[in-house]
Amino acid sequence: MEFVKGTLQSDCLEIEQVTPDMYGKTISMKGTVHNIRDMSDFSFIILRKRNGIVQCVVSSDSNINIADIKDADCIKVTGEIASDDRAPNGFELRLSNVKVLSSPAAPLPITINKHKLNLAIDTLLENRPITLRNLRERAIFKIQEGIVRGFRDYLFNQGFTEIRTPKIVQAGAEGGANIFKLDYFGQKAYLAQSPQFYKQMMVGVYERVFEVGPVYRAEKHNTTRHLNEYTGIDFEMGFIDSFYDVMSVEAGALQYTFDLLKNEYANYLKSLKVELPDVSQIPQVRFVEAKEMAAKKYNRKIRDPYDLEPEEEINISRLFKEEYNSDFVFITHYPSKKRPFYAMDDPENPKFTLSFDLLFRGMEITTGGQRIHDYQTQIDKMKSRDMDPEDFKSYLSIFKYGMPPHGGLGIGLERLTMKLLDMNNIRYASLFPRDMNRLDP
Amino acid sequence: MEFVKGTLQSDCLEIEQVTPDMYGKTISMKGTVHNIRDMSDFSFIILRKRNGIVQCVVSSDSNINIADIKDADCIKVTGEIASDDRAPNGFELRLSNVKVLSSPAAPLPITINKHKLNLAIDTLLENRPITLRNLRERAIFKIQEGIVRGFRDYLFNQGFTEIRTPKIVQAGAEGGANIFKLDYFGQKAYLAQSPQFYKQMMVGVYERVFEVGPVYRAEKHNTTRHLNEYTGIDFEMGFIDSFYDVMSVEAGALQYTFDLLKNEYANYLKSLKVELPDVSQIPQVRFVEAKEMAAKKYNRKIRDPYDLEPEEEINISRLFKEEYNSDFVFITHYPSKKRPFYAMDDPENPKFTLSFDLLFRGMEITTGGQRIHDYQTQIDKMKSRDMDPEDFKSYLSIFKYGMPPHGGLGIGLERLTMKLLDMNNIRYASLFPRDMNRLDP
Repeated sequence: MEFVKGTLQSDCLEIEQVTPDMYGKTISMKGTVHNIRDMSDFSFIILRKRNGIVQCVVSSDSNINIADIKDADCIKVTGEIASDDRAPNGFELRLSNVKVLSSPAAPLPITINKHKLNLAIDTLLENRPITLRNLRERAIFKIQEGIVRGFRDYLFNQGFTEIRTPKIVQAGAEGGANIFKLDYFGQKAYLAQSPQFYKQMMVGVYERVFEVGPVYRAEKHNTTRHLNEYTGIDFEMGFIDSFYDVMSVEAGALQYTFDLLKNEYANYLKSLKVELPDVSQIPQVRFVEAKEMAAKKYNRKIRDPYDLEPEEEINISRLFKEEYNSDFVFITHYPSKKRPFYAMDDPENPKFTLSFDLLFRGMEITTGGQRIHDYQTQIDKMKSRDMDPEDFKSYLSIFKYGMPPHGGLGIGLERLTMKLLDMNNIRYASLFPRDMNRLDP
Repeated sequence: MEFVKGTLQSDCLEIEQVTPDMYGKTISMKGTVHNIRDMSDFSFIILRKRNGIVQCVVSSDSNINIADIKDADCIKVTGEIASDDRAPNGFELRLSNVKVLSSPAAPLPITINKHKLNLAIDTLLENRPITLRNLRERAIFKIQEGIVRGFRDYLFNQGFTEIRTPKIVQAGAEGGANIFKLDYFGQKAYLAQSPQFYKQMMVGVYERVFEVGPVYRAEKHNTTRHLNEYTGIDFEMGFIDSFYDVMSVEAGALQYTFDLLKNEYANYLKSLKVELPDVSQIPQVRFVEAKEMAAKKYNRKIRDPYDLEPEEEINISRLFKEEYNSDFVFITHYPSKKRPFYAMDDPENPKFTLSFDLLFRGMEITTGGQRIHDYQTQIDKMKSRDMDPEDFKSYLSIFKYGMPPHGGLGIGLERLTMKLLDMNNIRYASLFPRDMNRLDP
């Protein structure tokens, strides 16, 4: 009987396995041909590997016929490691052998081996499986991976439990018409607009929970800041003293995450020329006050007293950048009218809620706040909005049978990525974006 | 201007913050009343916290009126820490004050503070938001969290990149009728049966990728081993030497995960009386051979030469447990007929594929294998199955423009949890299971 032992064997090395004491030795590596440059008496093969590129040299007196190798071939190379300060990672491989493992059936339709693609967004996205092979494009989603890792690790450290809740649901949590409908074995079902109900249920179980998962919004308009399927980083915490606790955890998570990016994703940040913002402290200001400050400073009339218009978000962010040098600002105490039925009203003025948004460089990336935890209060608020409590029996059972004071938030991962990387369209921050016209790839 | 600093302030302690040098001091804690026991001259309040329970003592001469406190109240207690070997965590709190933070509106419909709930499964699941508060129930999903953490951390260590791919898709990856349909702004769309196409696309970008996310199967039958929405742990890796590399990574991930559970989830394993299986080596056997071995040993006729019937999976597992003391067995070289169009046929005998399943205690928990990477081979195999390559243009572009030899697998998280915890129904291993009749909670 043969057994699988759990140790991957390979006669090839990865970039990070090459150390200066190995210079002069002959090793093998696998990768994709990123570029070939013929320099008359020798040639460069630039090998693309998962976390960087390797410079390989083929001298004209070698047995290797450079004409047998082409862009996008997957190859195994063997050669001597030589120190070269100008080469990526400080070394090059002087090849004695190249084995072609697989070859494309056609030349690449898009030149992906230049630094910046400069393609129209539709071309970029329609050819996503290929354009993502560009080093800058793939750097974006390494940084996005780092953002999720940062939040997750920080929340684990703070005693949160990771949960997975269903995305096929019986009722929308956020109301409104922007919800995808589904036939579920003859029953009407929906795609979850947020894990709101479920994460609140789980506060009664683990006190502190988080989920990173897909969120669905059937927005019937194409904008540069909306996706129809996006990734929500959601957390919810019990036994809070106030909704400021939720803001504290978010600020702490951002600090931790940017430190992680700085330490472990430095080369990707560098390749995208990203400057991480200072997040050591984030100013907080009330909704009404923020509106007035921006209206006054930029001489703009307040039109909608209940919500922030996109231009107002931009102006408020600008103001806090100019006056407090902060890329982030927490806006607190949003009007009840514009907040969902589960938001807790401010006992000092029930026209407002104990809630907040976080603006980052002119855009809302988080909505959060304290939730109602008292059964009767929740029932009354639903009725005042013409909702039928009978439709939400499972959800309401948590309040009926006891819930601690609690609050939480939802972060749009793609929006955070977009603003951090200074993009002008959220589609750049999604591997395979879904919008009204885009289902493929 | 006020600023959020990112440090959560609290005048209360968590269980893990109490250390023996603090005995004799007075502290505060928040939690939920799990149980009250009146012992005539004193009372116990058992406080349920996120990671355990705390024994609190109220003496009859204190100012606290025990009648004011009831099960499921959320409270803040203040008291002196005293060593008590019989108490959970080795200490108890001798209370001088109790503050009720919130109270339920009705008594709990189910007694959740006993060790085992012993409820009919429908009752358990219909009351999920409440029954999950039981210590044993919530231990299940802490272990499930640990399984995901284990796989994720191991795959990060092996150079994998974490990805997030869309669940609203234009075409099913696994074929068949068990797919949920959706109206997407007037276009026909589906819920992803697996991230197969997308993770293969991403192999061309990062070489090694993984995703932990929801998977949808519209199975039109209720069984104890199927869910209509479940969690897939999927990975895919490029530049493999053979599909045995994929099996190696899975075995390594299981080893790492069980070590993590042993080290960081010991109390949850103990409360559920879980014995972690030895996974230091996993036997591997060919499909045809496994079938014959089990048929011979248990004197059973082979009825379906192309697939394993559930009873055969049980018998094969039993055989490998009896003869090799292994709870796991890899079955390799499944017939092409029963494997998807992207599976690579065995060049030595194209009636079989370079693929495998992993059986764990009688059930398939993983399907994986090497994939076709050559464009023309993939086109030909699709045509031989009456599929139109035009319908899969984006997917096929990765082969057209170059793909390394690669393979991967998908693991059903709930199945792995179910078998590890010795459950007889997969619904026990899902927080909020979705089956034909269950959309709520």
